[in-house]
Formats: sequence, C-alpha cells, structure tokens
Amino acid sequence: MTQFSERDLKELANEIYDLDERVYKILGSSLGRVFNAGKKRSVIYMVSIMRSGKGYVLRNEMALISNMARTIPNKEERKKIMIEYDHLLHQIMELPTNQMQVDIVDEERAKLHDIHLKHRFDEEDKFIICIERTYGCGGTGIGFSLADALQINYYDDEIFDEVLRRLEAEKKYNIDHGGFSYKNVGEKGYEYTEPAFKAEEKPTFKRKLEDFSRYHGLPKRDAQFFNQSHLLCDMAKEEDFVIMGHCADIILRRNHIPHLSIFLTAPFEQRVQRILKVNESMDEKKVRKLVKQQDEKYGEYYKFFTGLEWQDPSHYDIAVNCASYGVQGTVEMILHMLKRNFK
Amino acid sequence: MTQFSERDLKELANEIYDLDERVYKILGSSLGRVFNAGKKRSVIYMVSIMRSGKGYVLRNEMALISNMARTIPNKEERKKIMIEYDHLLHQIMELPTNQMQVDIVDEERAKLHDIHLKHRFDEEDKFIICIERTYGCGGTGIGFSLADALQINYYDDEIFDEVLRRLEAEKKYNIDHGGFSYKNVGEKGYEYTEPAFKAEEKPTFKRKLEDFSRYHGLPKRDAQFFNQSHLLCDMAKEEDFVIMGHCADIILRRNHIPHLSIFLTAPFEQRVQRILKVNESMDEKKVRKLVKQQDEKYGEYYKFFTGLEWQDPSHYDIAVNCASYGVQGTVEMILHMLKRNFK
Repeated sequence: MTQFSERDLKELANEIYDLDERVYKILGSSLGRVFNAGKKRSVIYMVSIMRSGKGYVLRNEMALISNMARTIPNKEERKKIMIEYDHLLHQIMELPTNQMQVDIVDEERAKLHDIHLKHRFDEEDKFIICIERTYGCGGTGIGFSLADALQINYYDDEIFDEVLRRLEAEKKYNIDHGGFSYKNVGEKGYEYTEPAFKAEEKPTFKRKLEDFSRYHGLPKRDAQFFNQSHLLCDMAKEEDFVIMGHCADIILRRNHIPHLSIFLTAPFEQRVQRILKVNESMDEKKVRKLVKQQDEKYGEYYKFFTGLEWQDPSHYDIAVNCASYGVQGTVEMILHMLKRNFK
Repeated sequence: MTQFSERDLKELANEIYDLDERVYKILGSSLGRVFNAGKKRSVIYMVSIMRSGKGYVLRNEMALISNMARTIPNKEERKKIMIEYDHLLHQIMELPTNQMQVDIVDEERAKLHDIHLKHRFDEEDKFIICIERTYGCGGTGIGFSLADALQINYYDDEIFDEVLRRLEAEKKYNIDHGGFSYKNVGEKGYEYTEPAFKAEEKPTFKRKLEDFSRYHGLPKRDAQFFNQSHLLCDMAKEEDFVIMGHCADIILRRNHIPHLSIFLTAPFEQRVQRILKVNESMDEKKVRKLVKQQDEKYGEYYKFFTGLEWQDPSHYDIAVNCASYGVQGTVEMILHMLKRNFK
C-alpha cells in the first residue's frame, strides 16, 4: 500500500479543490461546486477525512465533481478535466483503509466459486453446475438446454431419482421395479401414469421393516436425502453435469467440491401465466394455488436439510430472473458467462 | 410448428428405442437401458406421451440415454451415437406443446430488460443501472467502480440526497445549508461529522409547519420519496448513470423507463467479517446487530414504498453474491455482461 505523508495528503486535497474550482468556473453554476467553504477550510476537511480512513467520503465528493464535469459542453475541455479526475481518483483509491480495498470475497467460497473458472477448477475437478429454480419459471428447460449446449450430463429430479433407484436396485437389492407404468384408457390409447415407485403407497408392516433396515433406522426422508448426497458426491468425482434441485449446491459446498450455483426464478405472476400457457385446460385459481404450494413445499424441504432460505440469493453465485431474459436468453447469458471463463 | 402424423410419432419412437438399445449393447450394462419393457410396449408408451403433450417426459428419457452414451469409451462410436441423439432430440423439441417452447418472458419487462441491450435501449434512451445492495457486501464500491469504468454518473444515497438538497435549495428555497461539518478534536486535528442537514434534529414547531407546506401535507418520508422519484425520472431523461438504492428499479419500471436492475449481496457472515476489517475498532457483537438492523430497516423502507420483498431475486434482472466473485470480480462480471450487449 502506498504511504502518504501529511504533505502528500495536503497536496492531494489542494489538487482536488482546484479541480472542483475549475469545473465550477467552466460550468458557472454553484450547483456544480462541491467544496464551497473556501480553500483553507476545504483542504483541512479533506485531509481530516483522508487521515481518519474515511476514503469513501472523499470518493463520493469526487463522484459529485465528475458528475458535473461530464456535463461540460466542450469536448476537449471535458477530456482534460476527466483525465485529471482519473488521476486524482486513483490516488484516493490508494489511501490506506479505503473501504474499496477491503474485499468481501470469502476465500473458502472463492476457491469453489471464483469467476475465473480456469483458476477455479483444477485439471482433475469436474465441471458441475447446480441449479435451483422456482416452480414454473422455465428453469428445467434452461438447465436441460444448458447441459445440452455444454455437452455434459443432465440430472433433474426424475432422472436423478431414476439413477438412484437403478443403482439401488442393481447394487443392493436387484429388484426389478418394472419399467414404466401406463394404463389403457380406451379410445385415447395409453396414458402415462407415475411410476409405481414414486406413488405414495400405504406402507405395509413388511415394507416399513425393510425401509427401517435399509436406511439404518433413519426416517425415510432423511435416508433418501443422505443416499442422494452420497450419489451426488460420487458422481462429482467422475463426470461433468448439470444438476437440478436436490440442495446440490449446499451438499457439494459442504463436501468442498467445486461447482457453480445458480438460482433461477421469475415473478409469481409470470410463472402462473407460463403454466397456464403450458396447460391450457388448467384453472387459473388452481394454478396460483399450485405454484404457491410447490414453492412452499420445496422451500421447507430446502430449509429442513440446509438450514437456509431457499430463495435467498446470498448463498448462490448468481440468481437470474428468467422473465427478464426468457428461456433462451437465460441459457445464452449463462453460456456467455462460462465461455469467458473457459478461455 | 412442425406437424407430426401418427406414423411420424411411431417412427420417432422406434428410432429412440433403437438408439437406447445400441447404447445398451455397447456398454453392456442394464443400468444404461432406458426402455427395457420390450420394443412394442416401449413404442406404445412413447407415442402416448408424445401425443399427450408431455414432451418433457420423453426429453428426460433422452437425457438418461445421453448421460449413458457419453460414457462410451470409443471416441468414434460415441460421436456417432451423439450425432444421432442430437438429431432425435431436435425432433422431440419440435413436438407440439413441448414445455420448452413456452417461454417465461414477460413482454413488458423484456422491453425494459432484454439482455440484448442493442434492442433494449432506443437511441434516445439513457443507459441506467439500478443497484440495490445489502449492508456490508461491498456493493457501494462495486457500483462506484462500475460507473467509473462505464464513464457514467454515479449516485449513491449521499450523493443523490445532496443533489436533491442542492436542487431544492436553488430552485425553491435558496437556503445555504452551510457546507461541511467538522469539529476540532485537539491533537488529532479535525474530525468529520455528519452534515447538519442529515442529523436527526428535534423538529421545532416552525420546522414542522415548513415541512407540512413544503410537502403538501404528506408525511415527510412519503414526500421525500416522491421528491426523489421525480428527480430520478427527470435524470433518466438526461443522463446515463448508476444509481444505488432508492427503490430506483421499481420507480423506473413503473414509469416505463428502460434500465438494468442488479441486486448485490453476500452471506451475512461474510458481510460481518468485511465490516470488521473496514472498522477494526468495532465490536463484533455490535457489527452483527448493525448489519441485521440495517437490512431490516432498508427492507421495511423498500416494502413500504414498493410492496415487494427487498431481497427477493425475482424482481431484479440478476442478483450476484459478491462473496463468490469479490468486489473486482463482480465489477468485471457485470461489465462483461454489458460489453456483450453493446457490441
């Protein structure tokens, strides 16, 4: 950090005062005058705030000067002033204990989340993007397109659960869950129904016992979560992927596995309208209720397993409003962010 | 939209089944088999979901196939499979009522918030960035650097209030508020104190009367807010700028003035640590309380004037976690986002 003597500070203050005065003279308006208490008093004031480590106060005074300076009509004159402004601002930024120099970066997090992916991911690290999204914002489609564009694997809830089910079936139980479920509904042909393993079955005593031993006595929801967490960390060692939901961001961070985390959302109203467009037969009132319920349900799940507020942007890397960019626009924006980092 | 006959759908289903089978044969693992219910049943199933408009279900099955296909060791073989996969996926995406085709974009908002700034801002529109930030996240420094890099004006709370005060003073009252406030504190020289016009003064009856008539009988807080809103909309017609806080995003949107809106934040813990670094003499317990209070205070203010949750990412364009990128990293990321759009 540059060392400033008392004399340096005074000189700097004098130069700032002179700059302000010149801008004022050119524009001829007292509105543009930042330091109007006389040169001596103004310099004392500036030196005192520089010395007290409140560099940001002076920075704001500088901003006022530059805001005015930019209104100077003569281009040459303006340019000359702005060059001097830049020179002085640079010195102010060098002041000790200037707030600007105190970074917010979380070293542990930065190691995982640095924007410069080339520094962030070691050669052996896999490239993983975790996406949480609110119901109806188009996030699933965005995640899918993102994985497709990056040519990496894609896991949303259904696919992830299916992989888990298959692994369980193969490794532990060798149970055949029986492919898809569909029933003949007459003229309409076949209708897809939820796979049996997903349905809420009334648990028999035998089933309860099975679950109990399978998950070492943990409640089933907890056991499933831990199963998923283990699978996720295992996958993260072996492949690049986009994963939707599952609190994946928090699980990976707690396991110190590098990844990007993105939260996708859109205003409630836009989400309702989008779902109505997708399902034209649905009742608007019901859709409103559904969106609210789904958000609440997942919010509770997220809070239960992470202790964090699901929609709080402070624990993702970025949060994007899909209604501002559209599905394709959001995909492009994220790709663009990543491309830069891969170069 | 492409029209699909029954025959097209069957053909597509057959091709998907064959692709799945080929991947399975190459990898030799039943884990990689998506359609294991026999060809006839699988095709009936696929056609039924295509016809029922649940294209996304099939898309997920495809994702499972491609996730497996990417593990094919032989590069040539993998490439061949992936080309076929892309071809089939493309057709699935063309299916009618595929969810992917229903966008989330809010047309009114997109007009204001399109990522493609070249489309977004008309020639006569000014370039305005609204930044809301949580206390201690480094947002003020980020906004300042951003304005400096873009060479546009910068208004944070202090500067904006100062401009408002000066305009008021000049236009309406011609009152001299008396420059800076500082007091001689002995050996240490001069110490900066808050300007008098900002201090919480005990209102005299005369002052109350003045305020009453100045703001046409509105409570002072409301009157100030409306004053600020008017100034903001006036400024937005004349200059490019970065504005911090003041619910500027919502004010501009309600006045249909194009702008970008950004929310800057960081986890609570990182913000506390940063403030402790800035103010080494401060007590940690006090800082925690301060951060909480400031967030609550501004959150209430924001809610009061906008009816919205301040920290809800769904009404900004993007929300960035400054702890992931650091102050300079966040500035660079936003600049990078903008550069693309200006080209």
